[in-house]
Amino acid sequence: MSKLFFVPTSEINRIKENISDNIALVGVLANIFRINTLSMIKEAGSGHVGTSFSCLDIMTWLFTKEMKADDVYFSSKGHDAPGLYAVLIGLGQLDYEFIHKLRRLNGLPGHPDVGTPHIQANTGSLGMGISKARGMAIANRLNGVSSKIFVLSGDGELQEGQIWESLQPTANGKFGEITLIVDHNKIQSDIFVKDVSDLGELEKKFAAFGWEVARCDGHDIAALKNIFEKFNIITDRPKVLIADTVKGKGVGLMEGERGFADGLYKFHSGAPSDEIYSVAITELIGKVNDTLRALNLDQLRLESNELMPRTSPTNPQRLVASFSDALVKLGEENENIVALDGDLALDCGLLPFKAKYPSRFIECGIAEQDMVSAAGGLALKGKLPIVNSFACFLSTRPNEQIYNNATEKTKIIYVGSLAGLLPSGPGHSHQSVRDVSILGSIPGLTMIQPSCETETALALEWAVKQNNSSSYLRLVSIPVAVPYQLPPDYVLTKGRGVKLIEGSQAIIFAYGPVMLAQAYQAAIKLKQEDGLSVAVINLPWLNEIDQAWLEEITAKFEKVFSIDDHYVKFGQGALLSQVLGKKITYLGLTEIPKCGWNDEVLAYHGLDAQGIAKTIRATLQ
Amino acid sequence: MSKLFFVPTSEINRIKENISDNIALVGVLANIFRINTLSMIKEAGSGHVGTSFSCLDIMTWLFTKEMKADDVYFSSKGHDAPGLYAVLIGLGQLDYEFIHKLRRLNGLPGHPDVGTPHIQANTGSLGMGISKARGMAIANRLNGVSSKIFVLSGDGELQEGQIWESLQPTANGKFGEITLIVDHNKIQSDIFVKDVSDLGELEKKFAAFGWEVARCDGHDIAALKNIFEKFNIITDRPKVLIADTVKGKGVGLMEGERGFADGLYKFHSGAPSDEIYSVAITELIGKVNDTLRALNLDQLRLESNELMPRTSPTNPQRLVASFSDALVKLGEENENIVALDGDLALDCGLLPFKAKYPSRFIECGIAEQDMVSAAGGLALKGKLPIVNSFACFLSTRPNEQIYNNATEKTKIIYVGSLAGLLPSGPGHSHQSVRDVSILGSIPGLTMIQPSCETETALALEWAVKQNNSSSYLRLVSIPVAVPYQLPPDYVLTKGRGVKLIEGSQAIIFAYGPVMLAQAYQAAIKLKQEDGLSVAVINLPWLNEIDQAWLEEITAKFEKVFSIDDHYVKFGQGALLSQVLGKKITYLGLTEIPKCGWNDEVLAYHGLDAQGIAKTIRATLQ
Repeated sequence: MSKLFFVPTSEINRIKENISDNIALVGVLANIFRINTLSMIKEAGSGHVGTSFSCLDIMTWLFTKEMKADDVYFSSKGHDAPGLYAVLIGLGQLDYEFIHKLRRLNGLPGHPDVGTPHIQANTGSLGMGISKARGMAIANRLNGVSSKIFVLSGDGELQEGQIWESLQPTANGKFGEITLIVDHNKIQSDIFVKDVSDLGELEKKFAAFGWEVARCDGHDIAALKNIFEKFNIITDRPKVLIADTVKGKGVGLMEGERGFADGLYKFHSGAPSDEIYSVAITELIGKVNDTLRALNLDQLRLESNELMPRTSPTNPQRLVASFSDALVKLGEENENIVALDGDLALDCGLLPFKAKYPSRFIECGIAEQDMVSAAGGLALKGKLPIVNSFACFLSTRPNEQIYNNATEKTKIIYVGSLAGLLPSGPGHSHQSVRDVSILGSIPGLTMIQPSCETETALALEWAVKQNNSSSYLRLVSIPVAVPYQLPPDYVLTKGRGVKLIEGSQAIIFAYGPVMLAQAYQAAIKLKQEDGLSVAVINLPWLNEIDQAWLEEITAKFEKVFSIDDHYVKFGQGALLSQVLGKKITYLGLTEIPKCGWNDEVLAYHGLDAQGIAKTIRATLQ
Repeated sequence: MSKLFFVPTSEINRIKENISDNIALVGVLANIFRINTLSMIKEAGSGHVGTSFSCLDIMTWLFTKEMKADDVYFSSKGHDAPGLYAVLIGLGQLDYEFIHKLRRLNGLPGHPDVGTPHIQANTGSLGMGISKARGMAIANRLNGVSSKIFVLSGDGELQEGQIWESLQPTANGKFGEITLIVDHNKIQSDIFVKDVSDLGELEKKFAAFGWEVARCDGHDIAALKNIFEKFNIITDRPKVLIADTVKGKGVGLMEGERGFADGLYKFHSGAPSDEIYSVAITELIGKVNDTLRALNLDQLRLESNELMPRTSPTNPQRLVASFSDALVKLGEENENIVALDGDLALDCGLLPFKAKYPSRFIECGIAEQDMVSAAGGLALKGKLPIVNSFACFLSTRPNEQIYNNATEKTKIIYVGSLAGLLPSGPGHSHQSVRDVSILGSIPGLTMIQPSCETETALALEWAVKQNNSSSYLRLVSIPVAVPYQLPPDYVLTKGRGVKLIEGSQAIIFAYGPVMLAQAYQAAIKLKQEDGLSVAVINLPWLNEIDQAWLEEITAKFEKVFSIDDHYVKFGQGALLSQVLGKKITYLGLTEIPKCGWNDEVLAYHGLDAQGIAKTIRATLQ
């Protein structure tokens, strides 16, 4: 199966014109938006299906029946962007052609961005929604504008401290114009919220913070209608609807518990397989057609297109898997090792450790500040905490907490996965390209980015066994086929790199599999096409460089290049320059990274082999 | 009056031996600790009196009667360190000689640090306490250790999201070994908590998060005793005591509402005047002696010493005051300007703006993440938010929120006061020496640090009127007498600095009044003592440097020096090097900054005029 089905706007308009009952209409539209959401995600190759489906009845009601022209809606969780795009496209607020542009360069970003028409706020990093809404409401009050603001949050998202930080001042300021809807689908990332970090008595909690609380089935359109009617007459306090929803709603095999296999929910992120797409799209189309038939309306006329086949890398390096194996092994040797997770146990490779050492695995939920300070407490009492999250969150949200731990001079290992420019599909909230600058100046925190599976295991071992102080491992999460190999006798030596290709005319410093692979291919290309001889160095040390080694290895080169999988400003290149005191040509990011397919984004930023070769060629000639 | 009074340990021991009633004993000891706390702060020249006094009855009860040998106590707010030190010294856990070492180099840091005996956690950055306690409790459980953990928090501190982030997992894990005591003195920094950001129904809130809640008068020792007894039999959930206390308790003129003048509480931080010290110490000594007399015990035998007179700078530059004036002026011209504060309105110079434009002043409380995201919402709706806090908090706690706003490409001005190494009395939690690296890589965020009052006003004006993107103003808060003046026709030009002294043999780049004053004096010194001719450049741009200008101004110099009021790693010097591609000698911080008097800390880090001159001399000769 490689045929994708989409519902065109003309069909949506036909249905809107022919169904007069609001409740029935919204139910049909929501399923039509599910069809388009699913096909968009399938075409994009990734995206969040489960959480888009759980809130589509709510979004459809809001956009078609509830919101006035000036009203604002945005999702704080942001994962549900594909669902929102399907709504906006379906209602003509976004051009239909965008339906084929999910997660593409100059298309629809993986998480919302205000660069897209009708997107009101950048989200994707969790917990910011209520605060942003209050800022908007204050501006409206100052401007004399009257408008309602609807914010959607996840339930896992309620573990973030900022949510609770923002609730009380929103109640104190009597922001009756703000309505929060909790898409309470009970599953966060891959497991049940109650098994990650139970939310406790949610209604009591919101009420204790001074909010008006209501609760209903988030797929019962009539119930939603009633609650928003009731909310409309309450103007002296903010309101929260806890909407009991089902993750994956609309497709049986994705719905809640039915979507689990091997203890994990399978439809949080990522595109469905061909088989599952086929079953799911058939079910959704069938549901819509059943309703149309009952109303004596014509069946859906669908557009379809062929899914372009995607290639995946051959024999790729999987750094997270290597980290995962090394962690289990070191956990056996060292009983003080404790692993902490922020609701990314699968993505961060922690499940084998969790299975083997359940008492030494601490699930903290989406609560990075709490996680890092808890690690601080563990370290003060002699444990060796290994703290995991995506690099974009780990380096930022608990930034002060990491520094606070560093001032205690305990030993902690931080592991930031999903580091660097790629994958570029999720967009800038998830592209961690600032972490070297953010954490690099902390005394006693050594940052390492391995280039392959072998070096990943060595890096963790170094951090556990050799480094007396704290470490930060920066891990690329995507599988990357690399054209180089480390020397068989390779040993990690603090501050020193290793030559992957010899050269005589120029030298490139890079780190991590993504940039090293491109640098290596650029060097080959320059040799073959231009006869230029360029050396490539893997320098995994991001904030510690051995000056004597650097001076020696660069001595014979007039031209030095640095490639950062990071902003150029305050990246590894800055440190190379600081230590070396020579002219360097910097490659890396100089603007907020683009969302898109990995290859198109690398090329856009001039960081694919061709772009790198071009820069080097221009500099050498 | 320059005589200070201290109660020696021998007297404390005498009283402990002679008062058998626990309640009475703790009451007397708490007042004795208040005497020592007050005198320590007076001798140090700064420290938090009000919040030390409000929790001294609680601390004294815990340390003398409640805690077993393995039990742990720490304060999450950390402000009350002088009170805690007085307790530890009084009970012989810290050497008595430390009583004269508050906020001194190698003495007792302004906020707690585990380098001090019996200090269990580094605090001072708020909200981390419960998380750290849970980490310690998990370690204890893994180690088979049974120990209770008592954490003290402030009430203003409860505005921090991390507090609420940490509550639910602590209840979920049934951490009955953890007891939180809220020192609910109703005043945060300078005004009432209810006027900053009301806490709402505190008991309901804690209960909704699954905690056992009790409440009592925090100065009623018998009531405290009863509650801890009750708590001791509850082991299946964490417990919180909301202790109603009085800020400044023990000295009438400091107690709660009586401590206010001109709408501000006067005894949050800073040493009391000679007159107030005299009245306060007399009252405290009188109270203790009254009790001793009633028990037929000898009056207190006090030690006393003379307070060394302190000099303050003559005709200093006050950058925050200059910012404050400029903000009011620009607020008149531009109605879109909105100022946001994180409970530091006095320290950040916001009171005049608040008084003049109350509807455009938004007090967010100690909730930096919420504040920054609210600013994001305001900016999305066309306002120009000016977001204020101490640099140490503003650059770290809402780091992801600042980046998120930057990705929306709105215009926001962040103002980080208390930036840099000085004042060094509060210790590393408050010394903001990482912010250039933390925020410097964000595209569209220009960082400026002015060197004097004039440049401060120019910098704000530039950020408001000329910069189309966002800015971060980094402000030194201490008054500094500077030996230089900007040229009368000085205009801020992005990326370019200005020469303060001509020179021919070497050139120093620095920024901000603290380092520029030292650099200037070093240049004079080198001229006079060594006949060396050293130019000094004020370069206020921290993350944008004009390459052509830099190359031109450094062209004739063989030796280039950079002085960072920041870690050397990823500071301005790194960027100078990146842009210039020449050898530079870096001065700045290479280790976690010391706490102490300003001059001794500058000297320790080699950043006073003498240290700078020494480095330059060694490099040039």
